[in-house]
Amino acid sequence: MARWEPNARERLVRSAVELFAEQGYEATTVTEIAERAGGLTKTTFFRHFADKREVLFAGQEIHGRIVAEAIAEAPASATPLEMVGLALDGLASSFTEDRRDIGRKLRTVVAHSAELQERSAAKRAALSETMARALRTHGVSELVADLAADLGVRAFYRAFDQWASSADSRTLVEYVPAVFSELKTAVSVLE
Amino acid sequence: MARWEPNARERLVRSAVELFAEQGYEATTVTEIAERAGGLTKTTFFRHFADKREVLFAGQEIHGRIVAEAIAEAPASATPLEMVGLALDGLASSFTEDRRDIGRKLRTVVAHSAELQERSAAKRAALSETMARALRTHGVSELVADLAADLGVRAFYRAFDQWASSADSRTLVEYVPAVFSELKTAVSVLE
Repeated sequence: MARWEPNARERLVRSAVELFAEQGYEATTVTEIAERAGGLTKTTFFRHFADKREVLFAGQEIHGRIVAEAIAEAPASATPLEMVGLALDGLASSFTEDRRDIGRKLRTVVAHSAELQERSAAKRAALSETMARALRTHGVSELVADLAADLGVRAFYRAFDQWASSADSRTLVEYVPAVFSELKTAVSVLE
Repeated sequence: MARWEPNARERLVRSAVELFAEQGYEATTVTEIAERAGGLTKTTFFRHFADKREVLFAGQEIHGRIVAEAIAEAPASATPLEMVGLALDGLASSFTEDRRDIGRKLRTVVAHSAELQERSAAKRAALSETMARALRTHGVSELVADLAADLGVRAFYRAFDQWASSADSRTLVEYVPAVFSELKTAVSVLE
């Protein structure tokens, strides 16, 4: 009978990232990940994730939902980039301090695997597409939505990288505005 | 002894895309691809491509080189988007009419496979990164280069999609300017 394991999902993510960082992604098995997560089983792992790789991209669905909801709730008078700003605030708020260390380790793990880099590129593309779709639903024209979403995703990952590699006490939410503002300034000198 | 096979690479790409479109990507073997390409062998296939998947992304390296060279040769007075425009012209020129049908089939094949979609996302990200790097080498600041490259890659794939799905006699080079111009207009209404 399946036991309910408190925070099993969260523990599995942390244990996977730690093991991948310590001994490599290829060399790590699902059994080891479950074991390190406080004696969980392979069966518990597969209740939460499709495979060893997907444990690293667990946030994709929820991040998409946060972005879509933030844009859906934006005031009708907001410009495309203002809507993107609201989406980024929502997204950044979902990253608690304990994700910073995971983020830092994850970056190194991904940098060492072509397979994980492809999966990462697909995650970014999916986030951009979700953001663009939410913008179009909110009345933004197709091409403007695409560009605004690309800019938003760039801003988010750039802020995330800065946050993950720093050791201060600022939250990710505090990193986002400066980066977003730099990117908006960059838009004005494209041509 | 290895025979020299005229246009083997090109024939393998075409035969792979045809077989994937007819019977599915998963169901197709390297032996079948080589066979359909005018009686080539598996060994010849592996002289050209690392695996069954990579045959679909054969252009990645050469496309990156075309983009980098076009930007390197741009006049110093060119704006970031003017440099991107030159890169897109160079890239589009490399697509001859016979690629249109391959492009159309490839799009369908990729749409049916999560694995190929990931690889496609990685290819787009790599093209954007190559373009951004070339722009930075040519004096464009980091963030401006990133945004200009994102816009350029969007413009290219959008023009490519329009070209691949149409049946007129216009070349890809003729499709690019209108799409690029639409995207540049979209930039001005982001905020």
